[in-house]
Amino acid sequence: MSIICFLGGARSGKSALAETRALAEAERSKKPLIYLATAVVDDDAEMLARIERHKTARSPQFQTIEEPLYLAQAIKPHENAVILLDSVGIWLGNMMMGELDWRDELEALLAIRATLILVSDDVSGGIIPDNALARRFRDEMGLINQQIAATANEVIYVTAGIATHIKGKP
Amino acid sequence: MSIICFLGGARSGKSALAETRALAEAERSKKPLIYLATAVVDDDAEMLARIERHKTARSPQFQTIEEPLYLAQAIKPHENAVILLDSVGIWLGNMMMGELDWRDELEALLAIRATLILVSDDVSGGIIPDNALARRFRDEMGLINQQIAATANEVIYVTAGIATHIKGKP
Amino acid sequence: MSIICFLGGARSGKSALAETRALAEAERSKKPLIYLATAVVDDDAEMLARIERHKTARSPQFQTIEEPLYLAQAIKPHENAVILLDSVGIWLGNMMMGELDWRDELEALLAIRATLILVSDDVSGGIIPDNALARRFRDEMGLINQQIAATANEVIYVTAGIATHIKGKP
Repeated sequence: MSIICFLGGARSGKSALAETRALAEAERSKKPLIYLATAVVDDDAEMLARIERHKTARSPQFQTIEEPLYLAQAIKPHENAVILLDSVGIWLGNMMMGELDWRDELEALLAIRATLILVSDDVSGGIIPDNALARRFRDEMGLINQQIAATANEVIYVTAGIATHIKGKP
Repeated sequence: MSIICFLGGARSGKSALAETRALAEAERSKKPLIYLATAVVDDDAEMLARIERHKTARSPQFQTIEEPLYLAQAIKPHENAVILLDSVGIWLGNMMMGELDWRDELEALLAIRATLILVSDDVSGGIIPDNALARRFRDEMGLINQQIAATANEVIYVTAGIATHIKGKP
Repeated sequence: MSIICFLGGARSGKSALAETRALAEAERSKKPLIYLATAVVDDDAEMLARIERHKTARSPQFQTIEEPLYLAQAIKPHENAVILLDSVGIWLGNMMMGELDWRDELEALLAIRATLILVSDDVSGGIIPDNALARRFRDEMGLINQQIAATANEVIYVTAGIATHIKGKP
């Protein structure tokens, strides 16, 4: 069991690097590949376009599981797989919209005995947002990223498509 | 005399790492520990909660000095101490609200003959803020961070609770 | 021919470091120095002040070429020079305002046989902007930075005036 986290800002290229890593891990370990999709398909055209773009870009080797909220439960039957979760930020947004607490769920996720490859969003930059919900999102995302990074075997920061290990080694 | 700067975004875990370092420096050098609090306690509930949370988390070994503006003057009598200043961003906010110029004050602070551990805010990310005051804050914070980093013995960038030295060595 | 990209947030000190590097490259190679200015001088007082500040700070050794849109064409006659382009973000803003597609133009730029020193803006941080145009800018800037970084010989991330190579070596 190992946790590998790709962290980066918007359009940093973190999804593509995480997918490449997931394919390499599955190849090396001969394990099945699962893509855990967190995005809820709704009426937002931008979001739909983004999901579609990611889906088209993704290798057909992935079996997709869709679960916006209860991630640990969804992947529990697949502990022998390499699981790519994209992204932790979208999941947090879903939890906040449902007014659900993420603490227990995150703990259960990080205890999963699979090769877990997480894509997470660094939203710590920039000035304090005007909007209270955005401030809360930024705070909670930061706490989640700290907890993931403390547990992960590797943390890779992605900037302009370039990966820099800030914890562990490939 | 040495200056150690922990730089990071919101909820990056920089305060906790800076405190751990301050405790280690005081332990090593047998010097007293001072916490220089810059936040002005006002009616803002979010800010009060944040101050309270930081205060509760902080080790009781610190003697707290509260000074929102004239930092060098406040710590001048404690040049034989290890001083933790959290945060430079809050201090800049205070200076801007008071329409005070930070240049001389920053120079005096960086000339202090103490072990100075600074927590500062990286607000350089994201798109240009709509708000003129936020743009000014972002500009001035960037200039201050450049000046601190040029003088500091160590600059540590903090992401998701993980410290990366970008200048000097521990 | 080589491409060196200085990437960083607002007021990170990236322009100054890029200029120093451009001067060093020209000195080493005995090539002429060209500054490719992308900013359109309009009525925005903040922008004017910024341009003026950069211009005053810049070494007189640079010959300045002003071109807000068609960069490759503008520098084509100077392929034997060291060219400093500051910044890619301003150019993208100009292209978006003119409703022009940047893809072909970027490709032509990256194919130039000169020593090209690019200053680009990391706007990937922070929470999702409210504004649709800002979101689009952030997305396209991210794609451009990925494309530049994939092609560049060196990518240098700048934080508080401190340069960290994330690709290649000086």
